[in-house]
Amino acid sequence: MRDAIGIFDSGIGGLTVLGEILKELPDEHTIYLGDTARVPYGTRSPETVVRYSLQAARFLAEKQVKLLVVACHTSSAVGLAALRTAYADDRPRVMGVIEPSVREALRITRTRRVGIIGTDATIRSEAYAHALKHLDPDVQVFTKACPLFVPIAEEGWEDSEVAALTAERYLRGFRELGIDTLILGCTHYPMLRETIARTLGSDIRLVDAGEATARAVRDLLKQEGRLRLAAAGSAKRVAEHLFYVTDAHERFVKVGSRFLGRDLEGVITVEL
Amino acid sequence: MRDAIGIFDSGIGGLTVLGEILKELPDEHTIYLGDTARVPYGTRSPETVVRYSLQAARFLAEKQVKLLVVACHTSSAVGLAALRTAYADDRPRVMGVIEPSVREALRITRTRRVGIIGTDATIRSEAYAHALKHLDPDVQVFTKACPLFVPIAEEGWEDSEVAALTAERYLRGFRELGIDTLILGCTHYPMLRETIARTLGSDIRLVDAGEATARAVRDLLKQEGRLRLAAAGSAKRVAEHLFYVTDAHERFVKVGSRFLGRDLEGVITVEL
Repeated sequence: MRDAIGIFDSGIGGLTVLGEILKELPDEHTIYLGDTARVPYGTRSPETVVRYSLQAARFLAEKQVKLLVVACHTSSAVGLAALRTAYADDRPRVMGVIEPSVREALRITRTRRVGIIGTDATIRSEAYAHALKHLDPDVQVFTKACPLFVPIAEEGWEDSEVAALTAERYLRGFRELGIDTLILGCTHYPMLRETIARTLGSDIRLVDAGEATARAVRDLLKQEGRLRLAAAGSAKRVAEHLFYVTDAHERFVKVGSRFLGRDLEGVITVEL
Repeated sequence: MRDAIGIFDSGIGGLTVLGEILKELPDEHTIYLGDTARVPYGTRSPETVVRYSLQAARFLAEKQVKLLVVACHTSSAVGLAALRTAYADDRPRVMGVIEPSVREALRITRTRRVGIIGTDATIRSEAYAHALKHLDPDVQVFTKACPLFVPIAEEGWEDSEVAALTAERYLRGFRELGIDTLILGCTHYPMLRETIARTLGSDIRLVDAGEATARAVRDLLKQEGRLRLAAAGSAKRVAEHLFYVTDAHERFVKVGSRFLGRDLEGVITVEL
């Protein structure tokens, strides 16, 4: 299956990004790789995250994907430079979730005060802050790691009182800071989008990195004339979606179907 | 440092078990290994947990520990048989956390209805239920996986409203079941002991696997005449405590000091 879009994540969360790509580009073949044997990346050292990311990228590059989407924010924050160096020939092109999210946040913000939430590792890397300030040196950035959001999303408790209280505890400080835009800097967080929105109120707009990245994928492939139907110029064939994980688990299928918004089928376990 | 007690865990949690061992046996040398690069084990397949456990055991066996305590419940539940086979010569002796906890629960219970909480993998393995019924076929067992307790303990939120609500949601069903004993089947859960006790009420007694295991360690070494001072018969020297992790992280030191109840010093990163 050449010319698919490859999506790599540390585990299940990237399925929210894949879900947005499928909405935006329903005709594209996709190959998803979840490194479920080594999830989460969010608490690991940068060296380890880089090593894992390179191994995952090699797996998808061997499948000759046309574009490698790094759905994992930790990996995008810490490993993207290493991946771009490894694939400097653009085979495949490499895209992270940070740059599309940052561009969307800067498009939206009026106060130029932007909040970012994510895993420990993503926040500590300061990758979002650097990317924002690189594009707009005057923007002010406020960050917060929110580790409980991940297991809450995986338990399916996103609309519970536990979720509401946790969101209040993590996010109340943002309301005093005059931000008008908050980047959901972790693949799991869109599952809590409504709870987060209720906590922050309607004055603060949320940037879903999955949505922003899916639009960036569409724009890039369109611009380069590499969208599947445009390129094939042939009768429409059904798009194929392959799923690989590094550790077999019924949980990936159960939780993943909820994250993706459709049934997961034919998940295959591989070693990296 | 020969004749130390080796303690192996998937990450930080086992420090609560080490803490109990240090209380019970302050004169013993200890070597702690936390597989922080691959934590958590609780969501992985049995094959992966066995492989990781054998690698960790080899590291400690090479350090010539006299006893290997498998502090990780998932590893004790899934990997202990493989470890006992690998070290059938008792060099080192291998002890898990499940058997000591189960014996303590059976000693306490009057209703012979026992609850068990732990990670997904521990609960799904049914290792606790099998161990209980092996010793007392008439005991009735009720289980529940409580994944949010781990990040709540790591955030230091154990006395928060989030913890109370989460405990209520996970545990309320136990109150109707007539259990009088609940095994805290995960190394993190003793951090939430008071919240769990408040949720369940004073009629239900909690078994802290760390405490039960520390007593079993003392009894075994005493019985075999291998307690450090008894064996040495020499003037008292200060006990040494070594800490190894598979992934460097300031978080291990910060969170771990709280779990252990004393400062962590000189943590060394190793590859397994």
